[in-house]
Amino acid sequence: MDHADPRLVAGDPPPFFAAHVFVCCNRRADGHKRGSCAAAGSEALRDYMKARAKELGLRGIRINQAGCLDRCEFGPALVIYPEGIWYSPKTREDVDEILVAHLQAGGRVPRLMLTAADVPPAKA
Amino acid sequence: MDHADPRLVAGDPPPFFAAHVFVCCNRRADGHKRGSCAAAGSEALRDYMKARAKELGLRGIRINQAGCLDRCEFGPALVIYPEGIWYSPKTREDVDEILVAHLQAGGRVPRLMLTAADVPPAKA
Repeated sequence: MDHADPRLVAGDPPPFFAAHVFVCCNRRADGHKRGSCAAAGSEALRDYMKARAKELGLRGIRINQAGCLDRCEFGPALVIYPEGIWYSPKTREDVDEILVAHLQAGGRVPRLMLTAADVPPAKA
Repeated sequence: MDHADPRLVAGDPPPFFAAHVFVCCNRRADGHKRGSCAAAGSEALRDYMKARAKELGLRGIRINQAGCLDRCEFGPALVIYPEGIWYSPKTREDVDEILVAHLQAGGRVPRLMLTAADVPPAKA
């Protein structure tokens, strides 16, 4: 191991992707009380993010759609692993900022990050 | 920060999920040369994994479907973050072993892990 992440064990392969982005593309019926990321526009933002990542020449980064990430109320939601940082981009400009500041430069975009307070309501 | 992962920066929120599993459920047309994880049975294994995780009472763990993870030739493929460990379970028993040995006990199931050699062929 070349770093100190305590979740890794001896013999683990190296990371397959340097960064792996999952964009929630779950769609619920219109009017569902939790809403859904697709209803909030996540599919178009995912398509844009994939295209822009390619244009920027970002290497070792994979951008995938995912099923419901259970943070519907704060969507469109995406999460970047292995660091486990969540964002809620609303616009293409937001996506650009995540691509450049986080995925290209290794920083963060605090104004778009979900926080520990952004939890779904308890199930009835 | 309470650990030494160099990918984290000061002020990052705590992990939203202790473990986040993404099961590739991409389906290509029958006969595609790369095959696809859904064609290899990933959807049923994903459903089983979600149900069994619930039965086992695993907490803080999310199991999601994902789009193409680009390791089609070695599918059904799944990846567990934040550790970034990839598996190719073929049966329900394989899924059980991953749930218990990896997600419950924090270990590994070496016989089912993808390795650094399991890379897709270069694009033509």
